[in-house]
Amino acid sequence: MKEKRNIYLTNIPLKEAQENYFSQIYFSSQRKIEIISVADSLGRITANPVFAHRSSPYYNAAAMDGIAVIAEKTHGATEINPLRLKRNEDFVYINTGGQLKDPFNGVIMIEDVVVIDENTVEIVEAAKNWQHVRPIGEDIVEGELIVAANHQIRPVDIGALLAGQIQELEVLPVPRVGIIPTGAELISVDEEIAKGKIIDSNSSMFSAMVQQYGGIPHPYPIVKDDYDKLKQAILEAVSDNDLVIINAGSSAGSKDFTADVLREIGQVVIHGVATKPGKPVILSIVQGKPVVGIPGYPVSAYFTVEFFIKPLIALYYQRRVPEADRVEAVLSRRIVSSLKYEEYIRMKLGRVGEKLIATPLDRGAGVTMSLVRADGVLVVPQHMEGYEGGSHVDIQLLKPLKEIQQTIVSIGSHDMVMDLLSNQLQEAIGNLYLSSAHVGSLGGIMAMKKRECHLAPIHLMDTVTGEYNISYVKQYLKGQSMALIKFVGRSQGLMVPKGNPQRIKGIKDIASKKLQFVNRQRGAGTRILLDYHLDKHGISHDQIKGYEREMTTHMAVAAAVEGGTADCGLGILSAAQVLGLDFIPIGWEDYDLLIPQELLEDKKIQALLRVMQREEFKGRISSLGGYSTERIGEIIYI
Amino acid sequence: MKEKRNIYLTNIPLKEAQENYFSQIYFSSQRKIEIISVADSLGRITANPVFAHRSSPYYNAAAMDGIAVIAEKTHGATEINPLRLKRNEDFVYINTGGQLKDPFNGVIMIEDVVVIDENTVEIVEAAKNWQHVRPIGEDIVEGELIVAANHQIRPVDIGALLAGQIQELEVLPVPRVGIIPTGAELISVDEEIAKGKIIDSNSSMFSAMVQQYGGIPHPYPIVKDDYDKLKQAILEAVSDNDLVIINAGSSAGSKDFTADVLREIGQVVIHGVATKPGKPVILSIVQGKPVVGIPGYPVSAYFTVEFFIKPLIALYYQRRVPEADRVEAVLSRRIVSSLKYEEYIRMKLGRVGEKLIATPLDRGAGVTMSLVRADGVLVVPQHMEGYEGGSHVDIQLLKPLKEIQQTIVSIGSHDMVMDLLSNQLQEAIGNLYLSSAHVGSLGGIMAMKKRECHLAPIHLMDTVTGEYNISYVKQYLKGQSMALIKFVGRSQGLMVPKGNPQRIKGIKDIASKKLQFVNRQRGAGTRILLDYHLDKHGISHDQIKGYEREMTTHMAVAAAVEGGTADCGLGILSAAQVLGLDFIPIGWEDYDLLIPQELLEDKKIQALLRVMQREEFKGRISSLGGYSTERIGEIIYI
Repeated sequence: MKEKRNIYLTNIPLKEAQENYFSQIYFSSQRKIEIISVADSLGRITANPVFAHRSSPYYNAAAMDGIAVIAEKTHGATEINPLRLKRNEDFVYINTGGQLKDPFNGVIMIEDVVVIDENTVEIVEAAKNWQHVRPIGEDIVEGELIVAANHQIRPVDIGALLAGQIQELEVLPVPRVGIIPTGAELISVDEEIAKGKIIDSNSSMFSAMVQQYGGIPHPYPIVKDDYDKLKQAILEAVSDNDLVIINAGSSAGSKDFTADVLREIGQVVIHGVATKPGKPVILSIVQGKPVVGIPGYPVSAYFTVEFFIKPLIALYYQRRVPEADRVEAVLSRRIVSSLKYEEYIRMKLGRVGEKLIATPLDRGAGVTMSLVRADGVLVVPQHMEGYEGGSHVDIQLLKPLKEIQQTIVSIGSHDMVMDLLSNQLQEAIGNLYLSSAHVGSLGGIMAMKKRECHLAPIHLMDTVTGEYNISYVKQYLKGQSMALIKFVGRSQGLMVPKGNPQRIKGIKDIASKKLQFVNRQRGAGTRILLDYHLDKHGISHDQIKGYEREMTTHMAVAAAVEGGTADCGLGILSAAQVLGLDFIPIGWEDYDLLIPQELLEDKKIQALLRVMQREEFKGRISSLGGYSTERIGEIIYI
Repeated sequence: MKEKRNIYLTNIPLKEAQENYFSQIYFSSQRKIEIISVADSLGRITANPVFAHRSSPYYNAAAMDGIAVIAEKTHGATEINPLRLKRNEDFVYINTGGQLKDPFNGVIMIEDVVVIDENTVEIVEAAKNWQHVRPIGEDIVEGELIVAANHQIRPVDIGALLAGQIQELEVLPVPRVGIIPTGAELISVDEEIAKGKIIDSNSSMFSAMVQQYGGIPHPYPIVKDDYDKLKQAILEAVSDNDLVIINAGSSAGSKDFTADVLREIGQVVIHGVATKPGKPVILSIVQGKPVVGIPGYPVSAYFTVEFFIKPLIALYYQRRVPEADRVEAVLSRRIVSSLKYEEYIRMKLGRVGEKLIATPLDRGAGVTMSLVRADGVLVVPQHMEGYEGGSHVDIQLLKPLKEIQQTIVSIGSHDMVMDLLSNQLQEAIGNLYLSSAHVGSLGGIMAMKKRECHLAPIHLMDTVTGEYNISYVKQYLKGQSMALIKFVGRSQGLMVPKGNPQRIKGIKDIASKKLQFVNRQRGAGTRILLDYHLDKHGISHDQIKGYEREMTTHMAVAAAVEGGTADCGLGILSAAQVLGLDFIPIGWEDYDLLIPQELLEDKKIQALLRVMQREEFKGRISSLGGYSTERIGEIIYI
């Protein structure tokens, strides 16, 4: 088996790569023009300036409902000497917008007209020449510029164009973007899912992005890893589209033919940029058209499309990519970044007090959810090692700042009930959001100490008294007026594979049976619980295989057990149930929300308390199993 | 002829009207759910929270290209003691994303592997358990919340949903909005234009607005003014749609049956709100569905749709209308408003120096172009008489602030070459705009004095020397370092109807033939020119019929002559030519751009200067007729 390996990529700064690549692209279709109906032109870009064909109004029109009169014939009318007018001779009835015909040259409002009989009215004031008349061209004058070239059509433009009697419009054609997915393991969105196959989610994400950029996506069938088939697919897509995306095959793997194919049929301008994620992008030109090889990991894919496809579509329209909205925020923790790359880090944002706090999300290129959850992006420049916690940093916003300001920020322990609460809030209130960062209970208390969050979900057992949470708050937040909002009681225990093949009975077995364990991160309440029980049984950490393997959520622990990379892990019943694992209970604990007392009066928190206590919400929690909700919403002042 | 007249409308404050009306609306379709493919869900609103069907990855996957190994079998490998591994027994080749099958439990990067032969590799470092492996659920864990209910789907959500193996999605149906145009004078967008008919531009504008709000527009054929036909049309639209717009017939005119029909088939909740524009709106409920009668004037129509249809569609989705972006600006002039209404005034905005300057546009309800040109809206509360010039006011933005900051603000005299220049800038530069307010030459100088603009186009003849512009700048902007950018020479003269029926030869004839004249506003260079010539001939103002009738542009004067409401007016050749009028030349004048010297170095102005001097641009000006461009771009320091 001979395989081409092309493991060395260039490491060109993004800006340089963009400038170099874009300077070599000339869209021939820029000079083409499409003629469409003005009525269907919303969002399209004008190819030429548009001047009014005709004035609006193009006749002298009544500006009021009333009667059209000959102004000269109304002279002398007063309250004392009313004047009678004869229909058709001295006046005609006219509605707003109606045409004023010779010899009429003024309008009297219907409110000022006394109807005597069918053919006679009386007026008490003379009309001035051209009063209440919209003269020709009042709105638009023939030949006047209505919209400039290179203008994106809005609803009011449609109104004005039609008022100027323009029914057809010359616009730039919409660029067609071919999207070719590659990879033996991929199946398309509508295929049935089989073991070892994954849904080609990127193509659909790209299609949606291309639509937002103002292009028409053309997804192609999945190309298996085959040099000739890939070549054929690219050539076909190039001939039918204005630009082409290939996903993936852009890295240096054994079956990544993409760069080789592109070199054969065109020119590879750049292979590899100094960004993370997004490094292994391929920027090429085939038959004069841009063909971009996008990495496969969803987060890399997203950023690479933003870096290159978005500006290419703007270039096609000869427009510029609008600058992202930015905001200054305070980093909640230290960020370390490589000197090799410019790094794009997804961030959660939240307004706590006067500060906008930014917390980094998972930085893995495969963690799509980090993009779903992100409020903004922090760009760490290439020649920078990172930022200290507390630094003021510049964040590119992914959501409107108003939405971020309507967000309750929770930092602390993870539980699925926080997801449910977040959903319940959004469903019930519409514009109130809950964002959760999972750093464990102690991490939550530390975040609260620095006032980086509104809420900290915690479950920390006092190993002396067995009581939950209160003693920790007293110790770490001494002298501060804090409160606990009681949330749920929950069942903690060992999660084991279905059928419990290792016949695990309790904590002791982890050491005695030399089981592969999976742990939670330092500071997690669940880890404190484990340590408490290990201590009780006189078991040391190094007797536990996998003690150092840390997960940050219950679900991640459960997934490790389900996946067979661990024999057991400590966690909550609901997580075990979701993945169909068996569960050996260890005890009940209190999962509460820590909050500063002064925030209890906050509107957002008041809404949260109302939503928490709804019967519907309690029912949803109970249906997960392993939770009690009797004390939900109760407040304990500390 | 008996006609119902319903001339008294209520005058309820907008907020009260909205609250009252919306509180009576219950959309039954809110409870309906539509199931669509995730791939096609961009922009749709989720009906329910969505939890992952399956983990992603749902098998342990290689995170790197390389070889899958059994970690235990790699122990002891070092630089000094490399270890050889046998294919299929000790290792298999694996690509990023490939499934790690039993018994393999780690990945070594291809860069760290030395290939010995087809079946043998050498490694120099041991692998740790599960190194370079993406464990099951690393991205998404089965059962995890991906998106909440009432969430609008973005491209990244599509990626995450598909990664969580969700292929179909429950979303809220899109509301259908019926649009019924009424009026005998209307013709549809695709009909041929006939005298006395106007294109139904509002229906197309409404359709585009409804699309932007997230609804599906259903335009109906135009209903002529007939009670029974209108009733039939409304009943049909109500049964096929979630909400219905009727346009117009909402005022109190003689043929405005709309309110009567609605009273017969449903309930009119409110007829008349205290806003300007937008007063005569009808808010009704027919068969439980909202039916809104919208006034006919395009500006009133636009605002009424924003006031009522936009929140109704949000209500349908149980979402809130996002608040408009706002900005504080300085009023360039006094605004007087009625105490009877809350008034919505379209504003031009521009950043000049450190100040954001707001200038009111035409306030007529029929002036669609005031909406096209507007950057924002100033709301003058009902119980307020207006604002003084120089006040700081709160403006609702209609365009992104960034676009406004990329705008060169011109205040002064009007000429079509300013339109051409605006278009040329946008075409050539893409994100550079020119906005022009027409207040006449002296108005422009006053605006420059207050530094409310970057440029002031002026053409002011010194009646002593005959020289243009310089003496005025010296007089009004004494001691300030100003410059003139030479723009065009242009031909001024009397515009008269085609064939010159009154046989006008010059200025003298206006008085001697007792012609109906149409004038320009005070401070306009053209008016100063007129006064100069009247003076020369010893004619006083009151000898000129129509001296007091003021227009603010050359085209408006030309339109008045074309429409027959004036026999002649003074203006430029190009305006006469556009409307096919005859022209009696009076003289040439210099139309220049006044600018502070320090701004000549500004990037935006530099770009403007480059664009002005392009041969293409000069050619476009020349083709209008009546212009000379020899000195274009020349700078005179004053």
